[in-house]
Amino acid sequence: MIEPRILKGFRDSLPQQELRRKDLITCLESVFSSFGLVPIDTPVLEYTEVLLGKGGGETDKQVYTFTDHGGREVAMRFDLTVPFARYMASHAHELPLPFKRYHVDKVWRGENTQKGRYREFYQCDFDIVGIDHVSADFEILLIINESLKRLGIPAFSVHLSHRGIFNSFLADLGIADRAPDILRCVDKMQKIGLSEVEAQLQEIITIQQTRDVLAFISASGTPLEVLSALGDLCGKAQEHIHRLSILTDFAMDAGCADTLVINPSITRGLDYYTGVVYETYLDELEAIGSICSGGRYNDLASLYTKQKLPGVGASIGLDRLLAALDELSDTPSRSSTADVLVICMDESRMGDYQRIACRLREAGLHAEVSLTKRRLPQQFSYAERVGIPLALILGEEELESGTYTLRDLQSRMQERLQSIEKLVNRCRLLTGKGAHTL
Amino acid sequence: MIEPRILKGFRDSLPQQELRRKDLITCLESVFSSFGLVPIDTPVLEYTEVLLGKGGGETDKQVYTFTDHGGREVAMRFDLTVPFARYMASHAHELPLPFKRYHVDKVWRGENTQKGRYREFYQCDFDIVGIDHVSADFEILLIINESLKRLGIPAFSVHLSHRGIFNSFLADLGIADRAPDILRCVDKMQKIGLSEVEAQLQEIITIQQTRDVLAFISASGTPLEVLSALGDLCGKAQEHIHRLSILTDFAMDAGCADTLVINPSITRGLDYYTGVVYETYLDELEAIGSICSGGRYNDLASLYTKQKLPGVGASIGLDRLLAALDELSDTPSRSSTADVLVICMDESRMGDYQRIACRLREAGLHAEVSLTKRRLPQQFSYAERVGIPLALILGEEELESGTYTLRDLQSRMQERLQSIEKLVNRCRLLTGKGAHTL
Repeated sequence: MIEPRILKGFRDSLPQQELRRKDLITCLESVFSSFGLVPIDTPVLEYTEVLLGKGGGETDKQVYTFTDHGGREVAMRFDLTVPFARYMASHAHELPLPFKRYHVDKVWRGENTQKGRYREFYQCDFDIVGIDHVSADFEILLIINESLKRLGIPAFSVHLSHRGIFNSFLADLGIADRAPDILRCVDKMQKIGLSEVEAQLQEIITIQQTRDVLAFISASGTPLEVLSALGDLCGKAQEHIHRLSILTDFAMDAGCADTLVINPSITRGLDYYTGVVYETYLDELEAIGSICSGGRYNDLASLYTKQKLPGVGASIGLDRLLAALDELSDTPSRSSTADVLVICMDESRMGDYQRIACRLREAGLHAEVSLTKRRLPQQFSYAERVGIPLALILGEEELESGTYTLRDLQSRMQERLQSIEKLVNRCRLLTGKGAHTL
Repeated sequence: MIEPRILKGFRDSLPQQELRRKDLITCLESVFSSFGLVPIDTPVLEYTEVLLGKGGGETDKQVYTFTDHGGREVAMRFDLTVPFARYMASHAHELPLPFKRYHVDKVWRGENTQKGRYREFYQCDFDIVGIDHVSADFEILLIINESLKRLGIPAFSVHLSHRGIFNSFLADLGIADRAPDILRCVDKMQKIGLSEVEAQLQEIITIQQTRDVLAFISASGTPLEVLSALGDLCGKAQEHIHRLSILTDFAMDAGCADTLVINPSITRGLDYYTGVVYETYLDELEAIGSICSGGRYNDLASLYTKQKLPGVGASIGLDRLLAALDELSDTPSRSSTADVLVICMDESRMGDYQRIACRLREAGLHAEVSLTKRRLPQQFSYAERVGIPLALILGEEELESGTYTLRDLQSRMQERLQSIEKLVNRCRLLTGKGAHTL
C-alpha cells in the first residue's frame, strides 16, 4: 500500500472549492469575451532557454527545470507573460494587431511554502498588444472595472499612475540613476507605510530629495487635482500627464470615473513597465492588497523578435480574489450544482426516473438521480448536505398518473404537479433559473 | 535573440482553436453538471512513487519524471485516473458516496511523436464511484448519449458489453488463463478486422476455441437478440447477462435505447475493467474509432487504501472529438466571439464608444471597440476576417442625436436605430442571441 500523500505547496481541490473557482473563472472569462478578447494557450513545458533566457536571476531558482527523455533542458511555465511573449514572436504574423488576449491557467514555482505560498497556482492575465495608445490603456482600466462589478464586489478603486511621470520627476531631481531602487522602495508603501518608506529612501538619496519624492507620491485628491499637482511638480512630463488626463476624460465620458484614483505612489516594482501602471484595492478589504495589477510595457517580445510589440495588460490574483469574495459574501458555497434530486423509491424504475430527469435537463435544470433506494430522510439529508434545494418524488402513484411530487427541502413543503410543464416551471421559479438560462 | 521554438509534441493554441476547444469543454461540462456531477482538481505534479507505484511498466517510460529542488522524486500526471484514485483514498471520508465527478484537463506523456501523437493533450473523464449497481452503469451510458446529442452529432452508437460474460465464456472453454492475451487481441477487431483477429487468435488457442471465440464476439442484432444469444453461449454468466438486460430495459424506459448496441467484441484492452465496458462510434465517421470509452472497475484506489471503491466511468477523447466535429460541420469557426465591432471614427470619442459598448455588454452582447482610427473599409475587413457579424457606426451625427447606425457586414445593409433599446434588440435578432443568454 502506498501512502496517498501530495507534495508540499500543492493542493487537491474538493468539489466545493472547484465549483467556486470555476464560477469565478467563468465570470471573468465572460467579461473578457464581452470586450472581444480571445483566449490562447501555450504549452506547460518549454525549452528552459526560451523561458529563462540565458541568465539566471532570483526567479530562476524557483522554476521547475529538468532534462527530458530526449536530453532537452525543459522548464514548467512560471508565469503567463513569458510564454505569451514567445507566442507573439511565433504567431504575430497570423494574428490581427492590436491583438487582445486573455489566458487563465496554472503556473508553477518552487517557492518557500512557509510564507503561505503555493507552488502550483493560477494566473489570470489579459493584454492588448501591438498598440501604444491611450485607448488601450483605457480599455484595460474598463476591463478591470467590469470584472469586479460583474463579480458583485461592492466597492473598489483602481489606482493609476504613470512610470514616465515619475522617471521624469527623478531626472529633474538628478537621481534618475537611482530610479530602480527608489521605485522598489516606493512600491512597498501600502505594506510598510509612509514613515518606513521615508527611512529607507534616506538611505538611497538626500533628505531634501526624500522630501521631494514624498511630496510627489503623496499628491492626492480628485484625478484632475492630482494631475494638476503633478503638472506643477514635473514640468517636463507634460506628455505623460496629458495622456493620463485623456484617460480620465474617457473614464468620465464612459461613466466609470467613480472608481478611478490617480495615485502617484503606485509604481509597480518591476522594471518591465514603462507607461501607465494599475493597482486595484477593495475598499472593505484594503489589507489584502491589490487584487489586480498591471501596466504598459514598451516591448513584449524583444527577447525573441525584432518586431516591436508595445502593449498593456493586467493580471488578477485569483487566489486572493477568491479569499476576498469569501470574506465579502454570506451565501454558503455549495458542493453540488444540482437543482433537483430525483428520489429513488424503487430501483427497477431507474429508467423512468432518468427519463423525467432528462426532461428537466433539456429545460436547463440540473437534475441528479439517486442511484439506490435508501430511506427517504437519508436521501433528503444528502440533498441538504450538498446544497440541492429540491427533491422530486416519483412513487407508483405519480408514475401511473403522470404527476410529480416536488418537495422544497428548506421549507419542507410538498406539492403535487399535474404535468411536466408545470413541474419545469415550478422548478425554475423555486431555483430562480429563468426560462432561457441553459 | 532567442529563437522562439517550442518542444516537439507540444502545441500553441491560436484563438480559433482555443475558442473551439473551450466551447467543446463548456458544452461537455454543462452536460456533466446537469446530471449532478461535480468538478475536482488534482496537482499536475505528484510524488513519482504515488503516481507510478513501485513498478515500472511500458507507460512509466513515457512519464515525465524528475528530481525537484528539495530532492523529491516527482512526476507530471500522465492521466486523470491515477490521480483520481489517490484523491479518493485521501478524501473519501469528506465526500458523499456514491461520488459523481468529472475532470477535464491536460496530461503529459513523452510519446513517440512520429505516430502523430502529442506529448501534451487533454483528457475528459467522468466517473461514479462507491457503488456497484446497474443504475450507475446506466447513468454513464446516458451521460455519453446526452454529451454527443448536445454537441449536435447526428448519428452515433454506444457499444456495450460485459467483461464478466466474456471471462465466464472463456472459463467454460477452459482457456481462462489466456484471457488477457485473448482480450487484447479481440480489442483490435475494429482496427485490424475479423480475419486478422482469427489469425492472431490461432497463435494463442486451438482452431476450435478460435471458432467458439469468434462465434461469441460476432453475436449481433437488437440488444435483446444478442443477450439471448449470449445466454445460449455461456450458461454460467446469467447474472452478468441479466445486468445488461436490466440496463437495456432502463434505456428503453428512458427512451434512449436507439443508440444502444450490445456488442460482445468490445473488450477494452485494459485489465482494469471488470464489468460493463463502453465504446462509442460515430456512424458517419467510423474510421476514427471510439470517441468515448470506459467501463466498470472493481476497486479504484486499492493501491492507496483498504476501502473498497468500485466504480464506473468513461473518458472522451477531446482531440479526436474536435477533429470529428470539424469533419461533420460546415460552419467556419471564428477567431472572435464579438457580436459587434464599434467603429472608431474619432479617437477623442473613445469614452463614448466604450459607454455605448458597455450598454451592449450589459445586455449580454459581446462588443469590441476599434482602438484606433483607420479607414472604414479596413475596420470592416478586420471584423469580417475574425468573424464579427455587425459593425456599429457612431459618427458625430449619431452621437449628437443619440442614434445608432448598425451595419450587417454580410448583407452590407445599414440601418439607423433611434434608441439603445432598439439597438440591443436589433443586435440580438441579427446574432440570434436571446434576451436571457448572458
